[in-house]
Amino acid sequence: MLATMIYAPGDIRVEERPQPKILHPSDAVVRVVAACVCGSDLWPYRGARPTKEPHPIGHEMVGIVEEVGAEVRTVKAGDFVISPFSISDGSCVNCRNGWTQACEHGTGFGGTDGFGLPVDGAQGQFIRMPYADGTLIATPELPSEDRIPDLLTLADVMCTGHHAAISAEVGPGKTVVVVGDGAVGLSGVLAAARLGAERIVIMSRHEDRQKLAVEFGATDVVAERGEEGIAKIKELLGGLADCALECVGTKESMDQALHVLRPGGHLGYVGVPAGGPELPLRYLFETNIHVAGGIAPAHSYIPELLPEVLDGSLRPGRVFDLELPITEAAEAYRAMDERRAIKVLLRP
Amino acid sequence: MLATMIYAPGDIRVEERPQPKILHPSDAVVRVVAACVCGSDLWPYRGARPTKEPHPIGHEMVGIVEEVGAEVRTVKAGDFVISPFSISDGSCVNCRNGWTQACEHGTGFGGTDGFGLPVDGAQGQFIRMPYADGTLIATPELPSEDRIPDLLTLADVMCTGHHAAISAEVGPGKTVVVVGDGAVGLSGVLAAARLGAERIVIMSRHEDRQKLAVEFGATDVVAERGEEGIAKIKELLGGLADCALECVGTKESMDQALHVLRPGGHLGYVGVPAGGPELPLRYLFETNIHVAGGIAPAHSYIPELLPEVLDGSLRPGRVFDLELPITEAAEAYRAMDERRAIKVLLRP
Repeated sequence: MLATMIYAPGDIRVEERPQPKILHPSDAVVRVVAACVCGSDLWPYRGARPTKEPHPIGHEMVGIVEEVGAEVRTVKAGDFVISPFSISDGSCVNCRNGWTQACEHGTGFGGTDGFGLPVDGAQGQFIRMPYADGTLIATPELPSEDRIPDLLTLADVMCTGHHAAISAEVGPGKTVVVVGDGAVGLSGVLAAARLGAERIVIMSRHEDRQKLAVEFGATDVVAERGEEGIAKIKELLGGLADCALECVGTKESMDQALHVLRPGGHLGYVGVPAGGPELPLRYLFETNIHVAGGIAPAHSYIPELLPEVLDGSLRPGRVFDLELPITEAAEAYRAMDERRAIKVLLRP
Repeated sequence: MLATMIYAPGDIRVEERPQPKILHPSDAVVRVVAACVCGSDLWPYRGARPTKEPHPIGHEMVGIVEEVGAEVRTVKAGDFVISPFSISDGSCVNCRNGWTQACEHGTGFGGTDGFGLPVDGAQGQFIRMPYADGTLIATPELPSEDRIPDLLTLADVMCTGHHAAISAEVGPGKTVVVVGDGAVGLSGVLAAARLGAERIVIMSRHEDRQKLAVEFGATDVVAERGEEGIAKIKELLGGLADCALECVGTKESMDQALHVLRPGGHLGYVGVPAGGPELPLRYLFETNIHVAGGIAPAHSYIPELLPEVLDGSLRPGRVFDLELPITEAAEAYRAMDERRAIKVLLRP
């Protein structure tokens, strides 16, 4: 089968790899229907995180179950499944608490599972899924083709935007600032609108992203950054914001998010901290700003979001503005790196 | 009148100072009935925070209103009042949001108020209170003498312990670890018990404080620290804790509090960060630990706690284990610095 590998910064290759098979009775083998490139895949692509040796890449996919191991109970061959970006056993204390991303036996794609077995990347034609029962979520029936992009966002980006909004305690009547206009930031806008926010300000300097943000429910667009951006937000909202969603992961974006918040406000952060700074404790102490977020427990959010995606009332798949065959994965990375695309859907 | 001044680290003096009078129509003059020394007063006393020039010290007191300015509506001469440790106008957006400690015109004791007028310290015989309506809270009638210590804790330490517990989302069924066995940590234990926590572990190595913690509702005492302390807590609770209350303000106490929490757990911190480190963002990102806290909005909490103090069901005043006349303020500081006393009550 074909699968995408990263060799080094900027060096993405699609190669023939061994066909995955059941290695443990809790496994499933899934035929990938659609995969995609994540903003966090760009960190190693840009060299911001090291790539010690070539390895499979990608952690977002939906597909059809080909085969299951003897212990698997909740999915069966032929099911359409969503795989959250983190693998979880579904039974440890953290999974039972709903924090599936912190599963005691969990792992990421492209790594090694709890049994010491290698895990494929998601940007390939097939994948062996460890802990199929604890990880995969099947749809009640085969979805129509036009729902595929929306369903694919539940693997990561929509759940991550939702996590930012939940962590920032977005709700009816709240004023919200979203820092970051990538697919996660845009999903954060959609999540905030879905949760009933009164005002949603997207901080964005890209016209296409501003437009999609407004379609997703942003009430205001601020192109300015730093002090100017804060001044503009104060003017628009008549003061600082109740909630801020940090969806980038840099020092600048975190500073921006912290400084648009009123005393007692809530920061929800989901940008992968990319060499960013530590959080300024004294500033938090003086402002009583609440800080929550991190890696989204996507598995825990899918049951809530899935029905709305299936009935078409929630359409996060509009973040995909380019679709390529998996053989062109290298071009997909380039397009996202150069900001020619917000998010690229790959067809195996 | 007599008032306590700090001249330099270790140099506390009680001096004759001008009798306070009404300087602004929103002022009240209060005769201090009881004041006390705060753990945070020990930072400048120990030189951990600089004292540039001699100034009045102290920010916790209860008293009787002597006189009010022409604009004051909510308190009158003869009222018994509690003064939260931060002065607030009661009308700005932050006060309306309940974050009175972040009042736009607020100030601390011993500083300068919003009109540029000097503010007395609380460890004196009298005090001019700016923004009397926004700051002071009167009891319905004159309290009995034995309630004075309990009422005095509402000025800071009980509200601060309560803030730690509220920030950590303590509630029924939760497991809670309290880091810090000073008056705030002990108040945190009492607050956690009041909020219905199932297990409350106090981390303490002092027998007198352990004993009071148990009286306040601690179910377990852990004398070990660091990795050993974490191992002991995991053993006692069958895992990591849901909530941690950080009530010290050092790097060690913050590390301890963060590392006793399970993924998705809640940290409530109220220890004044004393040159401590910034918060480890990557660790928070990976664990989804929620962080909240800071300077307590004491004014907002008093209406909830006051009735229970007045009817005797809440007795936080037991944190006072030494009472001295104000003329012996220097000895009060020494006793707390040397840990001979948990908290000292001063009588003017």
